[in-house]
Amino acid sequence: MGQVPLTFFRQVIAACTLPELMKGDLFPEDVKSRAQDILNHCGGKSAGAYSDSAGVEVIRKHVAAYISQRDGVKAHYEDVLLSTGASESVRSVLNLLNVHSNGRPAGVMIPIPQYPLYSATLAEYGLHQINYYLDEDNDWALSLKELQRSLDESRKVCEPRGLVVINPGNPTGSVLTEENIKQVVQFAYENKLFLMADEVYQHNIYAKGAAFHSFRKVMHEMGSPYREMELASFMSASKGYMGECGLRGGYVEVINLDPEVKKVLLKSVSAKLCSSVLGQCAMDCVVNPPKPGEPSYDLFIKEKTAVLSSLKERAQLVADTFNSFEGFRCNQVAGAMYAFPKFTLPQKAIEKAKSLGQAPDFFYVMQLLENTGVCVVPGSGFGQIPGTFHFRTTILPPLEKLKIMLEKFRTFHQKFMNEYK
Amino acid sequence: MGQVPLTFFRQVIAACTLPELMKGDLFPEDVKSRAQDILNHCGGKSAGAYSDSAGVEVIRKHVAAYISQRDGVKAHYEDVLLSTGASESVRSVLNLLNVHSNGRPAGVMIPIPQYPLYSATLAEYGLHQINYYLDEDNDWALSLKELQRSLDESRKVCEPRGLVVINPGNPTGSVLTEENIKQVVQFAYENKLFLMADEVYQHNIYAKGAAFHSFRKVMHEMGSPYREMELASFMSASKGYMGECGLRGGYVEVINLDPEVKKVLLKSVSAKLCSSVLGQCAMDCVVNPPKPGEPSYDLFIKEKTAVLSSLKERAQLVADTFNSFEGFRCNQVAGAMYAFPKFTLPQKAIEKAKSLGQAPDFFYVMQLLENTGVCVVPGSGFGQIPGTFHFRTTILPPLEKLKIMLEKFRTFHQKFMNEYK
Repeated sequence: MGQVPLTFFRQVIAACTLPELMKGDLFPEDVKSRAQDILNHCGGKSAGAYSDSAGVEVIRKHVAAYISQRDGVKAHYEDVLLSTGASESVRSVLNLLNVHSNGRPAGVMIPIPQYPLYSATLAEYGLHQINYYLDEDNDWALSLKELQRSLDESRKVCEPRGLVVINPGNPTGSVLTEENIKQVVQFAYENKLFLMADEVYQHNIYAKGAAFHSFRKVMHEMGSPYREMELASFMSASKGYMGECGLRGGYVEVINLDPEVKKVLLKSVSAKLCSSVLGQCAMDCVVNPPKPGEPSYDLFIKEKTAVLSSLKERAQLVADTFNSFEGFRCNQVAGAMYAFPKFTLPQKAIEKAKSLGQAPDFFYVMQLLENTGVCVVPGSGFGQIPGTFHFRTTILPPLEKLKIMLEKFRTFHQKFMNEYK
Repeated sequence: MGQVPLTFFRQVIAACTLPELMKGDLFPEDVKSRAQDILNHCGGKSAGAYSDSAGVEVIRKHVAAYISQRDGVKAHYEDVLLSTGASESVRSVLNLLNVHSNGRPAGVMIPIPQYPLYSATLAEYGLHQINYYLDEDNDWALSLKELQRSLDESRKVCEPRGLVVINPGNPTGSVLTEENIKQVVQFAYENKLFLMADEVYQHNIYAKGAAFHSFRKVMHEMGSPYREMELASFMSASKGYMGECGLRGGYVEVINLDPEVKKVLLKSVSAKLCSSVLGQCAMDCVVNPPKPGEPSYDLFIKEKTAVLSSLKERAQLVADTFNSFEGFRCNQVAGAMYAFPKFTLPQKAIEKAKSLGQAPDFFYVMQLLENTGVCVVPGSGFGQIPGTFHFRTTILPPLEKLKIMLEKFRTFHQKFMNEYK
């Protein structure tokens, strides 16, 4: 992720791996007590034993405590399943929705642009992908009118069962307002759609006035019947200020799930035995970080703040820079780790792309890559309104590298526009 | 797994987690060089970055070198995919076979008794489970006649596509002879079945005269056309002398795979991003252990030998003990980690079970559990010839505990027989 790993995280995981490291004063006391607490709940007090399929119980309890505190609404550890990154949980839940009816496939609504995990998994499972466009002119919010259009059209070919929302947004960098989330919850309720909230960027909020509102909290505050709705919410150790992608820690919280369906979910998960126990340890660090007064606290806060404030600076820089380019329009990067600017291309460039058999946005980013070494992903990889052009870039490179990259990009773009105007 | 983890393994993984541990003389030089070699091939030299979806390249190369040396037949790292335990690879490959044709589901032949990963995944994917019985009276070998019977029957309801062989066997504890493997390869060739060799227990061979023969080596030695056959072979860091189940390291080697099918496999794997990098590190230790002359070598050999010789002693003890029980017949535990004895029950016990609405083997093992605290799994969990009764037990408890357990079991069995005879 281009982030420096947090000392506390890595010390806890190293101690869980090799408990001898806890002897002596190599690690602070809070690192040792966290690691020992986890190991005490592992088979044979070892990270090398299979855990319960849903994860080490004490870690699930820490996750539930984290959610309870975040939302002010009690969570239950029995609703929490630890997984190999959030991706595995997303796959498990999508699989639950895969019930054909009347000879038609089940359909799942996903945002466009979207993170390709969803389209790939839907295709693999034979689920119908129902596209709804995010409202770019409205900070990538969800539009009720567009949700309804997309749902109505889909009913011709599938049985709609689920609605995926990614908040904060990947690749859009948006953060949904509480009001928008309420509208979505109501829409899901009215249309009997199972809500899947991909909330893995919940720690990545940068824009002034923006805040993370979890779907479960909003549903709870809306009262009955919304607080009784089924919901799956996904979280990961790969994002936020920790960025521990390679450790593959993640979880899903499923609330109000039909008990029979939950049994099927647990059974399906148990066929995979368990997720990486060290990945589970990473997730534990996310939800149970050092507390004020503990020896690791000051360093933890310093490292965490440094990562998040630098991401915030970069988020602003990236959007501002792109908005200064001719023909570019970039929403603010309010959260997550990406910008998804829209750009217009001169007709001559579009024709050139056509003559090469390339999509225009693909042609543009390939030219960028070949001329500057800068790699961004064309909008077609995530989906976009036909006829519009976008690309996704991350805000993850260190500030100095990012500045160099953006200046190279600016020079390229000016030349490109001069050439094709 | 009830095994003490190997020092070298845990030191390498701890060093990969927290590279600062490589400063000073906390760890031997070979531990540091192994860890540094892996980290040099990780993004940002960190185990926290996503790896390639197929795994860290240098680890795949180490796996290929291990296979090449094991078989005396060159392996290619491009054929090796690292995964979250072997289970994930098994699921990925089974998914490839899931092609309906003529409105009939694809079928996969699996041994009975079998490891339930197969039956569970087939059910989840909507693949037809084709049972072939292992020949208990012939040390659980595969019988050509039975394979043919099972295949012929299955053609009425499905399109057979795959053949799973577990060697060494779970739950049977068998080790297949080279001759038997040849027969199976020929059978798969003649019937155009994709061979899946679950070889995760390849380091667990105890019986005198028994040896592990990999399917790929046997196929190679058989010459054309067998050496050009497609094969998937699975391996894990969870078994052997390491028993690192919780770290979730595994791999599949797919040879001679149709290039278009391989693309689909890689695409499907990439939707899951990557397996745990620390799990991949565990797999690296398995295939690239300390070499003679390196500082960790002596301790490694001592620990490895202690585990394997103790498992061997326990394998013998368990089979011998069960064979001394009235009505028990247990094949030798030639490999893997399990005994799967057959037992007969007095008619009165069978009737008692029926009156409780329980299967007789379930009734017996529940009585055992309630009276002694000893937990074994009834044969019905793995499959058995109808009318026969078995259970699976592992040889993993430490020797002293195992002896106590077996004596409790003996006392229970005598009482049970007295009560129901």
